[in-house]
Amino acid sequence: MTLSDLKQQVCDANRALPASGLVRLTWGNVSGIDRVSGLWAIKPSGVDYDALTPDDIVILDLEGHVVEGKLRPSSDTKTHLHLYREFPEIGGVTHTHSLHATAFSQAGSELPCYGTTHADHFYGTVPVVRALTPEEVAADYEHYTGVAIVERLRELKLSPLEMPAVLQLHHAPFTFGKNAQDSLNNSIALEMCAQMALATFALNPSVTPIPSHILDKHHLRKHGPGAYYGQK
Amino acid sequence: MTLSDLKQQVCDANRALPASGLVRLTWGNVSGIDRVSGLWAIKPSGVDYDALTPDDIVILDLEGHVVEGKLRPSSDTKTHLHLYREFPEIGGVTHTHSLHATAFSQAGSELPCYGTTHADHFYGTVPVVRALTPEEVAADYEHYTGVAIVERLRELKLSPLEMPAVLQLHHAPFTFGKNAQDSLNNSIALEMCAQMALATFALNPSVTPIPSHILDKHHLRKHGPGAYYGQK
Amino acid sequence: MTLSDLKQQVCDANRALPASGLVRLTWGNVSGIDRVSGLWAIKPSGVDYDALTPDDIVILDLEGHVVEGKLRPSSDTKTHLHLYREFPEIGGVTHTHSLHATAFSQAGSELPCYGTTHADHFYGTVPVVRALTPEEVAADYEHYTGVAIVERLRELKLSPLEMPAVLQLHHAPFTFGKNAQDSLNNSIALEMCAQMALATFALNPSVTPIPSHILDKHHLRKHGPGAYYGQK
Amino acid sequence: MTLSDLKQQVCDANRALPASGLVRLTWGNVSGIDRVSGLWAIKPSGVDYDALTPDDIVILDLEGHVVEGKLRPSSDTKTHLHLYREFPEIGGVTHTHSLHATAFSQAGSELPCYGTTHADHFYGTVPVVRALTPEEVAADYEHYTGVAIVERLRELKLSPLEMPAVLQLHHAPFTFGKNAQDSLNNSIALEMCAQMALATFALNPSVTPIPSHILDKHHLRKHGPGAYYGQK
Repeated sequence: MTLSDLKQQVCDANRALPASGLVRLTWGNVSGIDRVSGLWAIKPSGVDYDALTPDDIVILDLEGHVVEGKLRPSSDTKTHLHLYREFPEIGGVTHTHSLHATAFSQAGSELPCYGTTHADHFYGTVPVVRALTPEEVAADYEHYTGVAIVERLRELKLSPLEMPAVLQLHHAPFTFGKNAQDSLNNSIALEMCAQMALATFALNPSVTPIPSHILDKHHLRKHGPGAYYGQK
Repeated sequence: MTLSDLKQQVCDANRALPASGLVRLTWGNVSGIDRVSGLWAIKPSGVDYDALTPDDIVILDLEGHVVEGKLRPSSDTKTHLHLYREFPEIGGVTHTHSLHATAFSQAGSELPCYGTTHADHFYGTVPVVRALTPEEVAADYEHYTGVAIVERLRELKLSPLEMPAVLQLHHAPFTFGKNAQDSLNNSIALEMCAQMALATFALNPSVTPIPSHILDKHHLRKHGPGAYYGQK
Repeated sequence: MTLSDLKQQVCDANRALPASGLVRLTWGNVSGIDRVSGLWAIKPSGVDYDALTPDDIVILDLEGHVVEGKLRPSSDTKTHLHLYREFPEIGGVTHTHSLHATAFSQAGSELPCYGTTHADHFYGTVPVVRALTPEEVAADYEHYTGVAIVERLRELKLSPLEMPAVLQLHHAPFTFGKNAQDSLNNSIALEMCAQMALATFALNPSVTPIPSHILDKHHLRKHGPGAYYGQK
Repeated sequence: MTLSDLKQQVCDANRALPASGLVRLTWGNVSGIDRVSGLWAIKPSGVDYDALTPDDIVILDLEGHVVEGKLRPSSDTKTHLHLYREFPEIGGVTHTHSLHATAFSQAGSELPCYGTTHADHFYGTVPVVRALTPEEVAADYEHYTGVAIVERLRELKLSPLEMPAVLQLHHAPFTFGKNAQDSLNNSIALEMCAQMALATFALNPSVTPIPSHILDKHHLRKHGPGAYYGQK
């Protein structure tokens, strides 16, 4: 992948945020990485999506140094950086404050898998990530946000492509993917599943998660060696 | 109907899914059948709606063999096939994961007829279809999804044009119609009725279904021999 | 007003229904009347809004005879007719199945005035109209719908411009106005107030209606002899 | 700032109201002030947003006299005037009846800070402003609306840029900002936070506000001397 392609992909995914309905004002950012060169690309901070061009996208290395770009990168850059360093299987990260996923984050409610819509994207319950301590906030807020996310998936023994979403307590969701667009698709799926779960719970407060044989079937027909969804 | 017309109708109905608000990402598909030739048409799997052309539509026969088309048909093809084989009166099938109808499916809540909006499309309570067993999932998931739907409507002695919608437990709705567009209209009506029912129940938890004389009046002024809705 | 102007106004108001978010499929209609000639205009039955032209609009007299137009008028025509005959002060009628107003209708819940948004349009609680009896449904469903609406406002001693909205039990809302567009604006206001009331009640189940001095102030600054809202 | 620039800014912000999703019909207005000249600009009353041009914007001085403009200013003009007189640090005011913020106003429920989306804009709980008395309504409704808002923020010892939003009981929200566009952004943020809070509370009725160390971090990384969000 050329650097030009990477900037275009990351620009496109960021520009898709307002139309996706996930983002108001400037509340969201998408990044993507080229694992061959180890260079990655992220939205500049506080810039309107509609005005964004590939030249505005900021390029960094895996030490966090800006390699190319005149604008200041997203204020969440250190969170993305830590995720790319610790999760070598991911190629994209999306952060939004989408309405229902953020409500789950604020409520400290993990998101159980109530149906196949969820199973198609997330292999089980989407976990809540703990709040940072005052010491972590004071030392390096955005870095420790990444640390807490990685810590939580490892505790649960979940890989970030099996469980490409987390809900940070008092804050909002982060999603991952094979590339920038795929991480954005997981944010779209997460928001939809969160809204569906809230309505499901309103209809039936004693609803139980999907049986494991249906979870497995739906997740594995889209992902893994025997997948048969989509074109070859 | 020519094969070309059928492909155009099925393409149009699939392309209408995102604008209908029923579908995010690639979560939905519409099919239609020409009963004279016994050939039917369905969306290819995992293709974006905006990019879809009539040439992408896959044509199959009632044995499930692909007769025309270069792309792999929808992963839900065997469900549609079984419905066309068992319900000779239907001409179209739509499957979506629309938000509120899917919440009813996930909650295992049947959808009572609370008003005339519902009565205009569905002649009584929209039923829940049971989950598949581990054996059925392992043997042929999509085929047995169709089997369970047919079984449920027969148990209830309902014809698929009187009750052109079902809610599959842990999964999502399927709707039927006289043709592809009509099945899509029933998906739109089902989503609206599900959202209305949730709000109705929030306002009045002891709400009762519509009286039968009003159900009959509204259903029959649109459907059946004495219908007087629309143009002649 | 010329007949041509009336047809244009009624066509415009009907075409505005889908964009208003109040109507899916063909679930809504607007009519308007010229009180000088006693002729009135309504949407034809079951025609798509986007395809509607002024020439499609059906013209009737106050006896209910079609005076002009090749298409069959809305199936709700006799309801509109009765309202124009009994309420000489109204110039337009809108009927929709908008989501939240219909939920109130289905729940049999009248809509109290919880704030100034409501007070600006509706002078107090929006009433529920009773369901029709089996005899009324069998004899002339749409006519008796109008009869029940008129009966309810008279019981409550409310004029249809002070209270330009009703919620018919098991069915949906009807709104009135000075002309076609004004009746549509009242449908938009009613849907918004119904959705707000549902959220208000979720936040505070013991919420009380707006005090009468604020209701009077807001209603009368927009309506009546001392109104000072808008341009002269 | 020239008067022409001020009119353009206020026109743009008002025209952005319908697309923002905050406003139906003509239920909202934005104003902005040039502190050097002491002149301020507001939407004319009851004019459609789409039809608005900079020449329609009404210019007033801080005594409330119309200095330029042929149209009658917004019926809420005296509220805006009082806010500009008493809060010299603000440069813009937005008033809407946005759905969820209005529901909080109607319910008399203050809006706690449940997460960082809220903390980025509002430094703590958004307060409810009391209803006006019958005497205040009779004497000068719109003026006393401003008086009650100022009184409430002073009671709470909050500056209007730290807490650029209030919820008036039985009525709707008002927001402030550095200029017209910034006050509109705060209305967008308020509506989103209100909707999120309602969903958060539905998920977890015993949810607690965000810890103060995270509130401080998020508010201060966007506002104040050490802010590092956005471009320099």
